[in-house]
Amino acid sequence: VTPGELALTPTTLSDLYRAYIDCLNRQDWDQLGQHVADDVEHNGRPLKLAGYLNIEFLASDPPLVAARLAFTCSPKGKFLGLDINGRTVSFAENVFYEFRHGKIASVWSVIDKVAIEAQLAD
Amino acid sequence: VTPGELALTPTTLSDLYRAYIDCLNRQDWDQLGQHVADDVEHNGRPLKLAGYLNIEFLASDPPLVAARLAFTCSPKGKFLGLDINGRTVSFAENVFYEFRHGKIASVWSVIDKVAIEAQLAD
Repeated sequence: VTPGELALTPTTLSDLYRAYIDCLNRQDWDQLGQHVADDVEHNGRPLKLAGYLNIEFLASDPPLVAARLAFTCSPKGKFLGLDINGRTVSFAENVFYEFRHGKIASVWSVIDKVAIEAQLAD
Repeated sequence: VTPGELALTPTTLSDLYRAYIDCLNRQDWDQLGQHVADDVEHNGRPLKLAGYLNIEFLASDPPLVAARLAFTCSPKGKFLGLDINGRTVSFAENVFYEFRHGKIASVWSVIDKVAIEAQLAD
């Protein structure tokens, strides 16, 4: 019996997800395989930005988790086609995850590029 | 007792949400007040595009609903700062709603602008 086949209540799934976000915030890349399946599917390039990631809120409806994440980071060079060049920007990501066997198997992410553009225009 | 105070199970909330999307697809603006609170808060301009709106999936975790919506539409002029000029574009919106008393009270939406840019570059 794998973790995904145990009682996957909304609370269990929230806890699994929060552990993943903690792992990202620790930049503990060695442990990422505990949270993400080897063959994870993603609609874009996964965000591996150095910066802090905060869960604004999440909806847990097994096997799906949806989260609104807040990022603050200072990407070097380009990000989403925008010249950031080390400026500090804050933006939201609204993202869905499908869990299988207790790990993230698919990701559908949308980043608020319009909000970043507004900050660069300031 | 208002609808929002009745048993607001994940299924109830999903059904309320699907009725809202049906209303949008019918372009039945007169009925919109049955689904959306008068003082709804939104992080951007609500989408009132003529075009078809499809729920790819949703996560219902009362009082939150998160949905990934697929749009196909042909905006005239500019949309999100992009010159669309009537071209047909398809894009996703990842969006969270908070329900109160059976109606949508807050909305946090992110539209996949990067996907639209890629279509305009084709």
